[in-house]
Amino acid sequence: MLRPKTAPMGWNSWDCYGAAVTEKEVRQNADFMAKYLKRYGWEYIVVDIQWYEPGAVSHEYRPFADLEMDEYGRLLPAPNRFPSAAGQKGFTELAAYVHSLGLKFGIHIMRGIPRQAVHRNCPVLGTGKTARDAARFNSICMWNPDMYGVKDNEAGRAYYKSILELYASWGVDFIKCDDICRELPHEEAELRMLADAVENCGRGIILSLSPGPALLEKAELYKETANMWRITDDFWDEWPLLYAMFERAEKWSIHAGAGHFPDADMLPIGPIRQDYDKNTRTKFTENEQLTMMSLWSIMRSPLMIGGEMTGFDDFTMGLLTNEDILKLHRNSRSARQILRRTVAGNEWIVWSAASSEGGSYVAVFNAGEADGEFSFLLSELEIEAESVRGTELWSGEPVEFTGSVTACVPSHGAKVYFLP
Amino acid sequence: MLRPKTAPMGWNSWDCYGAAVTEKEVRQNADFMAKYLKRYGWEYIVVDIQWYEPGAVSHEYRPFADLEMDEYGRLLPAPNRFPSAAGQKGFTELAAYVHSLGLKFGIHIMRGIPRQAVHRNCPVLGTGKTARDAARFNSICMWNPDMYGVKDNEAGRAYYKSILELYASWGVDFIKCDDICRELPHEEAELRMLADAVENCGRGIILSLSPGPALLEKAELYKETANMWRITDDFWDEWPLLYAMFERAEKWSIHAGAGHFPDADMLPIGPIRQDYDKNTRTKFTENEQLTMMSLWSIMRSPLMIGGEMTGFDDFTMGLLTNEDILKLHRNSRSARQILRRTVAGNEWIVWSAASSEGGSYVAVFNAGEADGEFSFLLSELEIEAESVRGTELWSGEPVEFTGSVTACVPSHGAKVYFLP
Amino acid sequence: MLRPKTAPMGWNSWDCYGAAVTEKEVRQNADFMAKYLKRYGWEYIVVDIQWYEPGAVSHEYRPFADLEMDEYGRLLPAPNRFPSAAGQKGFTELAAYVHSLGLKFGIHIMRGIPRQAVHRNCPVLGTGKTARDAARFNSICMWNPDMYGVKDNEAGRAYYKSILELYASWGVDFIKCDDICRELPHEEAELRMLADAVENCGRGIILSLSPGPALLEKAELYKETANMWRITDDFWDEWPLLYAMFERAEKWSIHAGAGHFPDADMLPIGPIRQDYDKNTRTKFTENEQLTMMSLWSIMRSPLMIGGEMTGFDDFTMGLLTNEDILKLHRNSRSARQILRRTVAGNEWIVWSAASSEGGSYVAVFNAGEADGEFSFLLSELEIEAESVRGTELWSGEPVEFTGSVTACVPSHGAKVYFLP
Amino acid sequence: MLRPKTAPMGWNSWDCYGAAVTEKEVRQNADFMAKYLKRYGWEYIVVDIQWYEPGAVSHEYRPFADLEMDEYGRLLPAPNRFPSAAGQKGFTELAAYVHSLGLKFGIHIMRGIPRQAVHRNCPVLGTGKTARDAARFNSICMWNPDMYGVKDNEAGRAYYKSILELYASWGVDFIKCDDICRELPHEEAELRMLADAVENCGRGIILSLSPGPALLEKAELYKETANMWRITDDFWDEWPLLYAMFERAEKWSIHAGAGHFPDADMLPIGPIRQDYDKNTRTKFTENEQLTMMSLWSIMRSPLMIGGEMTGFDDFTMGLLTNEDILKLHRNSRSARQILRRTVAGNEWIVWSAASSEGGSYVAVFNAGEADGEFSFLLSELEIEAESVRGTELWSGEPVEFTGSVTACVPSHGAKVYFLP
Repeated sequence: MLRPKTAPMGWNSWDCYGAAVTEKEVRQNADFMAKYLKRYGWEYIVVDIQWYEPGAVSHEYRPFADLEMDEYGRLLPAPNRFPSAAGQKGFTELAAYVHSLGLKFGIHIMRGIPRQAVHRNCPVLGTGKTARDAARFNSICMWNPDMYGVKDNEAGRAYYKSILELYASWGVDFIKCDDICRELPHEEAELRMLADAVENCGRGIILSLSPGPALLEKAELYKETANMWRITDDFWDEWPLLYAMFERAEKWSIHAGAGHFPDADMLPIGPIRQDYDKNTRTKFTENEQLTMMSLWSIMRSPLMIGGEMTGFDDFTMGLLTNEDILKLHRNSRSARQILRRTVAGNEWIVWSAASSEGGSYVAVFNAGEADGEFSFLLSELEIEAESVRGTELWSGEPVEFTGSVTACVPSHGAKVYFLP
Repeated sequence: MLRPKTAPMGWNSWDCYGAAVTEKEVRQNADFMAKYLKRYGWEYIVVDIQWYEPGAVSHEYRPFADLEMDEYGRLLPAPNRFPSAAGQKGFTELAAYVHSLGLKFGIHIMRGIPRQAVHRNCPVLGTGKTARDAARFNSICMWNPDMYGVKDNEAGRAYYKSILELYASWGVDFIKCDDICRELPHEEAELRMLADAVENCGRGIILSLSPGPALLEKAELYKETANMWRITDDFWDEWPLLYAMFERAEKWSIHAGAGHFPDADMLPIGPIRQDYDKNTRTKFTENEQLTMMSLWSIMRSPLMIGGEMTGFDDFTMGLLTNEDILKLHRNSRSARQILRRTVAGNEWIVWSAASSEGGSYVAVFNAGEADGEFSFLLSELEIEAESVRGTELWSGEPVEFTGSVTACVPSHGAKVYFLP
Repeated sequence: MLRPKTAPMGWNSWDCYGAAVTEKEVRQNADFMAKYLKRYGWEYIVVDIQWYEPGAVSHEYRPFADLEMDEYGRLLPAPNRFPSAAGQKGFTELAAYVHSLGLKFGIHIMRGIPRQAVHRNCPVLGTGKTARDAARFNSICMWNPDMYGVKDNEAGRAYYKSILELYASWGVDFIKCDDICRELPHEEAELRMLADAVENCGRGIILSLSPGPALLEKAELYKETANMWRITDDFWDEWPLLYAMFERAEKWSIHAGAGHFPDADMLPIGPIRQDYDKNTRTKFTENEQLTMMSLWSIMRSPLMIGGEMTGFDDFTMGLLTNEDILKLHRNSRSARQILRRTVAGNEWIVWSAASSEGGSYVAVFNAGEADGEFSFLLSELEIEAESVRGTELWSGEPVEFTGSVTACVPSHGAKVYFLP
Repeated sequence: MLRPKTAPMGWNSWDCYGAAVTEKEVRQNADFMAKYLKRYGWEYIVVDIQWYEPGAVSHEYRPFADLEMDEYGRLLPAPNRFPSAAGQKGFTELAAYVHSLGLKFGIHIMRGIPRQAVHRNCPVLGTGKTARDAARFNSICMWNPDMYGVKDNEAGRAYYKSILELYASWGVDFIKCDDICRELPHEEAELRMLADAVENCGRGIILSLSPGPALLEKAELYKETANMWRITDDFWDEWPLLYAMFERAEKWSIHAGAGHFPDADMLPIGPIRQDYDKNTRTKFTENEQLTMMSLWSIMRSPLMIGGEMTGFDDFTMGLLTNEDILKLHRNSRSARQILRRTVAGNEWIVWSAASSEGGSYVAVFNAGEADGEFSFLLSELEIEAESVRGTELWSGEPVEFTGSVTACVPSHGAKVYFLP
């Protein structure tokens, strides 16, 4: 499998467009990324769920909708939404366009084979078997109506092989597979079939698993089969969800590295949920966005932008283009929560990490409801020096700590230090 | 709803023929019952699951098989197995034949609407709605591939109305609905829709729910909607399953009566599992069969014969035609387990019941592995007399108990006393 | 063991006096019962917990208080509270007084041996063993500080024998043992030791187990060893507790009879909790008290009065002296909940029972918040007559039901019918 | 609190002598350590449980035994076992002797106050309160009979203060408190009282908590209050217990450092369980001992020798005196499990850590039943070099890995590499 040294960075259509994104919207975000963000390391453009559903108009799914599909039961982009896909060309042209910008192209798939293919009994490409041979009649997703799970048999393996070869032929660089990492063990065999098909499709493809929460006791399985996996259910712009991520991050951070990265989900920033209301912006405060970006970076989560990028303001752009923070995201090693302590009613969380280039990172989060100042001993970081100098990365200001670290942090905010 | 005073008695095709019974086999069993058993109160002839599956050959289901169905998504008997159903006549002729014998006719249905109807998007009779409007995409049976659950909406109600009207038009007297009483609450609304459709179909139809184990805390729901409901998963000819029934019976017996009867499942006696091997006979010993028939009768479970009746031997016929035991089944009231006690390593279970015609019944079961004799005080039955006389019902022998009841019972066997 | 035909009826000091009752209070209640209630069947006078604690002043326990005890580690009544116990006479004189009134005398004990006896290492009477040999160091009651559990060994058995012989010598007729039926199995051996000691102490003594909730799966154990056992934690004068009793009663009612009775706990009526405030009266409304007395009676729970009887008003006396209700309590057989149904937002519960003298009892409870009228078919009671006549027992008024039973019942109230 | 930079190393009497160790045995082990092990960093001599029980002869406890205690309810060493303690001198002389050897002295205590002190109602030093005021009557240890838990009140705090001041006056350097970290939260308040007493006793004392398994969700509490805490129930010389430690170590390793160390328990090596049989030696194979020492070291567990040191053979001495391994134990930072993989039926586990002096450690464990060779990519360690050179620490042999690490490891054995 591919072993990217750093966690993937990109854009995903879900937070903003749900199941209804169009080619035009994808292209405009690709253009934006190429122009403004590529230089900072952002590179993936991912089309999320139901690009094969002609009637999708929001984050909701229409049960039993007729899906765009080829004769072998392989889903195709709906041409009414993706005009370049007309004539069963799939995402070939869109991928080529994204590549032409110097970016990479990804798609979402659901675990399994379309129910529609099964009830029509489509042949599975390259075998004498049919979709009915491949499908498990009682393996379904509880929240999406499209698929049946696939059996670990000749027909099932051939089906996964057939779709991966198709996607590779389109030029897909990244696959986010859904309904595959929350409710193990029943999908374990299916995950291994999928991973084998990715491995052998003839193109290097990043594999991302969803939805979470993934199962901690299956960490080694995820590491063997995938590049990233969701450690949380869908993450949205609400403080309780961000707060809860600290605990998940603490448990999962030891599994980040060497091509596999626990995934804290997309960054719901800027204009989101545009299918419901064009005026919707993230409900996260600026401090909360700093906290999110700091935590995701130090824990080496993939960074997938969720908002419509053409509508980003200066703050949001600053969030995504802070070179020191992005360097932390690249170079963080052995990140861990050092302490979590409630002082005078305010909860403080401290993470530290080594830098692969030397020196240490320390992030201080104020998870409480009041602005405040928090101190802890340098020895709690196992730093033996009496005094250290460094920089706060969001502000760029120099700092010096003697004996202890003291940080003034607003409620729900974060400070991130690099101590060379 | 119908309120039969006594628990239904009849024959069901499952134990012997699985999903594959044919019209010929149904008719021969109806003939047998009419000739030999009707006079004892046996009356229902029930065709169990998948009479609409042309290719069924055993107890197994073929996922995604093409089912016989009318234009409104209503399943029809497969004419290759039920020749009289040709020309979409359904079970009209078979029901008429059963009625001509003085018996009643029943069928099995699965909760829901055929997936095949949904993916073909059949219209629902008498509405502008379609099967897709009625179906719940994520409500499926875990062990049978045929159906989707039905939503509690106009389309769903109309669908249940449409099938009940069809079955009533065929002359169906008894419906066993499957996949509807084990995993509440999610089917609760669907159960109420079904019960309403039964109530309003214009024909008196007994409603039986399956599979178990039903949920004890939902007893009042079952009593309000159905005439019988399974208190156990599929029951087969194995002592551990029979042994386990005592505990289920103890918990459920207070809910028997007034038209509603906890159902301990079919009686796997005589030739069974004929789809696998024509030589298969029940593995229950004669004592175990006496125990089963005694427990089912005193607790007022429905009595549904599971074996091929034309192959019954004298013992089996004796089991089903003991007039005193069948009277117990009709007249038992307020049955309960009186005691369960291990003495010298042998476990003894005693049940008692009042008779609706006066007097008491007492059943003594030896659940241990050794033949033995068990005594308990008359006062434990709240009988205040010094001495009582009565009859042992299986043997017909007179008994007299002074101070205490003493019963010699072989291992896994039973004695049943009537004390006037 | 004793097998009383009817569930015990009496008075217990706990609800009114907690751990602090005095001889004077016991005598005045005995006098009252003898004069006003004995003729209706009330007969037990029971001194509840900590009669051996000189400093008890309320329902609270004082940890590590010095207890009155003899040289063999057997607790004795505190003479400052029970003057007739002076000179280590125990309850001999008080029991004799109660007997002289034609009543019976009971006491409460805790499971186990006093910690005080163990740490002083008292000898166990009639053995070469000591309290330390008998005690289990890690078996304690979580809510009372006095005792250690007792091992199933020679010392343990001798200790239980020694206390039962002492209590029998005092003339005790009834023992309520606490901390012995909620957390089985760890006390199962101890319960059997206690029951053996009761059986062999040379005096007929009723054995009552506390606290609840008892474990339904241990019903046979309780039936073998005890005459009554608590099916609930402490019951007090609050509607939610009374409401919750219906479900407990439904599950336990099949175990009533033949000398063993599931116990719904004391009746908190009239003046209660006098240790806290002399003006405290039960918070139950009159309708709730009728509901309680009706349910306890039809299910054959023991009836133990909890209030200070000398302060009873006419309503309370009427509650305890309704001869028809007390006859129901004596004669009820095979009681069960027939239905529980919510109609128009009001919840209705119907129980029925046979009478040992012929005829049926039906109780209709309105568990809802609104007064109302409820109807159900006679056939739901398995009564086949078109029409029945009878009497409502609380009012004494004649009733006639044709086709169905219709009852007007106020919120939280009850109607009880006898249908001959 | 003290923040030792490295996890404590020493000897504890439990594995070898249970509750029955004597002063002579302690002194001989102190002598041995001073002579042969001190130079390698071993320094603590810890007397484990029940030094106050004159009659202790094995690992078993005698319930309700009379304990050596002062007038304030503070336990004292039993002079028949610790002659230097005669005259209520406590461990003063023994501690002084240990100090004279250049070592440190530790003792075991149980959470709480002696039951004996409570039932005798001893005064608590320096207050008007008594032991009964301090004790919680229903807080006991399930496996040891000696104590009651202590309330968080004036008496309770004073009691802990009084014992810590006594122990400090004796010269105690290390306290292992038992019955305090498995069943939180009920001991949380007691743990904080204890930690406060340690903090304020005027002497620097290491605080160790037992038994395990500690609760992962309480990690921050342990880190705030203690220097080490047991992550496992008692660890003994059995492979399944050693195997299970890998999972515990994986979860707990992020909490090691800065003065607080998850504790994998004593090392049961050499002669152990001498109270039962003088010929008993550890059942661990040499490979298993290497595995244990490697895992404990890389995860920075405290290292407490459990065997009688005077009976150690060369292998055991080699295990404890490998300077490279002990340097790993001192310098390991950010240790984590990198992968756990089953290949051809053999299970392999790889850990890595940074060294505080630069370079990396990698440990390869063969948890399978067959000797074998295991390879994994250097990139899985996030090492980007094509090729690395280093040393295997147990053998001292140089190694060179190109592209991947390949290790030959016997069943249950380990290889540990330092890669500068």
